[in-house]
Amino acid sequence: MALIVQKYGGSSVATAERIKAVAQRVARVHDRGDQIVVVVSAMGDTTDDLIKLAGQITKQPHPREMDILLSTGELVTSTLLALALGDTGYKAISLSGAQAGIKTNGDYRKARIVKVETKRILEELEEGQIVIVAGFQGITDDMDVTTLGRGGSDTSAVALAAALSAKVCERLTDTDGIYSADPRIVPEAKRLEEIGYEEMLELATYGNKVMQPRAIELAELYNIPIRVASSFNDNPGTLIHGGVSMEVRNKVRNVAYDMDVAKITVVGIPDKPGIAASIFVPLAKAGISIDTIVQNASINKITDLTFTVTKDQMNDVMKVMKPIAKKIGAREIVGDANLGKVSIIGTGMQNTPGFAAKMFATLSENGINIELISTSEIRITCIIEESKVKEAVRALHHAFEVEV
Amino acid sequence: MALIVQKYGGSSVATAERIKAVAQRVARVHDRGDQIVVVVSAMGDTTDDLIKLAGQITKQPHPREMDILLSTGELVTSTLLALALGDTGYKAISLSGAQAGIKTNGDYRKARIVKVETKRILEELEEGQIVIVAGFQGITDDMDVTTLGRGGSDTSAVALAAALSAKVCERLTDTDGIYSADPRIVPEAKRLEEIGYEEMLELATYGNKVMQPRAIELAELYNIPIRVASSFNDNPGTLIHGGVSMEVRNKVRNVAYDMDVAKITVVGIPDKPGIAASIFVPLAKAGISIDTIVQNASINKITDLTFTVTKDQMNDVMKVMKPIAKKIGAREIVGDANLGKVSIIGTGMQNTPGFAAKMFATLSENGINIELISTSEIRITCIIEESKVKEAVRALHHAFEVEV
Repeated sequence: MALIVQKYGGSSVATAERIKAVAQRVARVHDRGDQIVVVVSAMGDTTDDLIKLAGQITKQPHPREMDILLSTGELVTSTLLALALGDTGYKAISLSGAQAGIKTNGDYRKARIVKVETKRILEELEEGQIVIVAGFQGITDDMDVTTLGRGGSDTSAVALAAALSAKVCERLTDTDGIYSADPRIVPEAKRLEEIGYEEMLELATYGNKVMQPRAIELAELYNIPIRVASSFNDNPGTLIHGGVSMEVRNKVRNVAYDMDVAKITVVGIPDKPGIAASIFVPLAKAGISIDTIVQNASINKITDLTFTVTKDQMNDVMKVMKPIAKKIGAREIVGDANLGKVSIIGTGMQNTPGFAAKMFATLSENGINIELISTSEIRITCIIEESKVKEAVRALHHAFEVEV
Repeated sequence: MALIVQKYGGSSVATAERIKAVAQRVARVHDRGDQIVVVVSAMGDTTDDLIKLAGQITKQPHPREMDILLSTGELVTSTLLALALGDTGYKAISLSGAQAGIKTNGDYRKARIVKVETKRILEELEEGQIVIVAGFQGITDDMDVTTLGRGGSDTSAVALAAALSAKVCERLTDTDGIYSADPRIVPEAKRLEEIGYEEMLELATYGNKVMQPRAIELAELYNIPIRVASSFNDNPGTLIHGGVSMEVRNKVRNVAYDMDVAKITVVGIPDKPGIAASIFVPLAKAGISIDTIVQNASINKITDLTFTVTKDQMNDVMKVMKPIAKKIGAREIVGDANLGKVSIIGTGMQNTPGFAAKMFATLSENGINIELISTSEIRITCIIEESKVKEAVRALHHAFEVEV
């Protein structure tokens, strides 16, 4: 008998019919003799609808109130799934984040899990119950409801799997697994049978929005394998785990992309100590999250500094930067919101030269200009014109013969 | 400085716009220097919509799961009202039933409040917060969410008013107060300025569905005045309290009616000890709630027994009764689902003869046949043909010169 944690995303539980289908899937796990804890998201667009409703009331919602409001979406799904299981004769009980013992700090809208008190869940499992937990939510020591940020149900599921020493955390949505590239752009892209935590983390951060990076970090920390699969079929999906076999390591595993890049260049800054801080401290205070930063080599003690943000932050950056540019004596600020990024990811690159050269050559051969470059040990990212991103993904997927 | 509890019903908070209007009304109480605790129902038809959603999943929903599901409706309203108050610069905090300390027994769907732990509410009031409590819900000692039954938000409000020793519990809905009869049927019906707890209790039980009888009992027990008024205007409404002035006591205060009556007669039963038990014990076990019971005088040791239920229970009653009738040797069972009841209510009737006679005469003069009669100290109820109910209400309102 093993303990399995399954997590179902919003599209998998969007209607009463789909919830009944999920119940059948959950029941199969129970039938084969395993214990099961199910984590659910809110039905379909419920969370967005609740945000819209709050938007009709106020433009600046109080985070504490928003968290209680948003937490109701997952409560609805978890009770409906418990009812569906009960209807087919299974013993099932729904637990809110609070009842499931998911304790968080008081950082509303993006709370971090402090610990999971598993007593109640273990008691219910002991009694033969299928346990359904409302994802995305927790509770503070003061009994105030918190939410874990967008995609937080993934984190709920992995945290529960870790706390319960589950055999595997199955993440079931409307996607079939992790692909070597977006199949909508690269028709020959293939589903990966397995992928390492680090690669998946780069992938989640640099393109594929399928999973919250926090959830992957947590899984790696506690060595919990995650199976990403579709809730609509029985395909095996992709296993994210630490023991990826040697043979597949020495390769590019994935070509990722992200259309949401804006670039800001501060031109002609006197190059002296403290310049970077005088730019980035005010931006951080304004809540702007910086992605890549590049500083050019200085010529005659004058330099340029370039950084990227998501497109929706472009205006805020410009507003914050105007007075700063004046103060530090920069010549001008140039913004470009028509950018995207393309990344190649694979642990194989770590000790093998030539990947970067091949990437740059491939882009060049296709007439694609590189605006910025950033790298990690297992990833190379180029920022390019947004309109060239899809072409770049296809060219790189072909050039590196990404196979699985 | 006084402490006021206000309760807003579903139609008063049905839309974002109405919630904003309620926020303004609540703010006015705060502005005049009073402390305020607000209890809210779910928005509009939310509760019915959730019940429908569960109905798509199962015909026999587990009560525990239903209670969590239904409790989400009030959580949504309470957070939205807190957001609306926050938006206009007021300090407001929403509390779930659990956070507000409303402890109940574990009788799902119709839980009883065991106690209210007021610590958190008092702390928040102390900090100058307007406290918004999600109505209709509580929590057991095992941290399981319960609901208080239909209209349970009234009970939440009165229980909080009692526990906090509030000056008054204001119950704000889309009705202007308590009337001497339904104004849709009797155009000359007048709003009562005040009404005693006992009269209101009879009225709530025998017709006017405006308020849960439990809430009125609770208010009487703790001597909490309830003001029933409209949330859409500033009319004074009706004050339900214990100190109704002597002058208005000696009268019929209200003509109530209820269209939802079915009558079952068990004909030709051998009249021997234990017959009543052998009928009503199985009905109680089947969860059927009996209203009036009348047993005819026995002739030749043969008697008839008649009782009434709500119309939706008629079929269940017939099913349960068939084998029992056979067993006790009854001749037949006759059901009639086309009935209603009309009641006159007033503490004045207690010590004054002639009310019953006048009621029967009035119905007779209007050609209305009486099927059954039941009385309390301050109420006389006649069960009559459903199609004659409205006519009866008008005739009785006129005959007793019900005025206020």
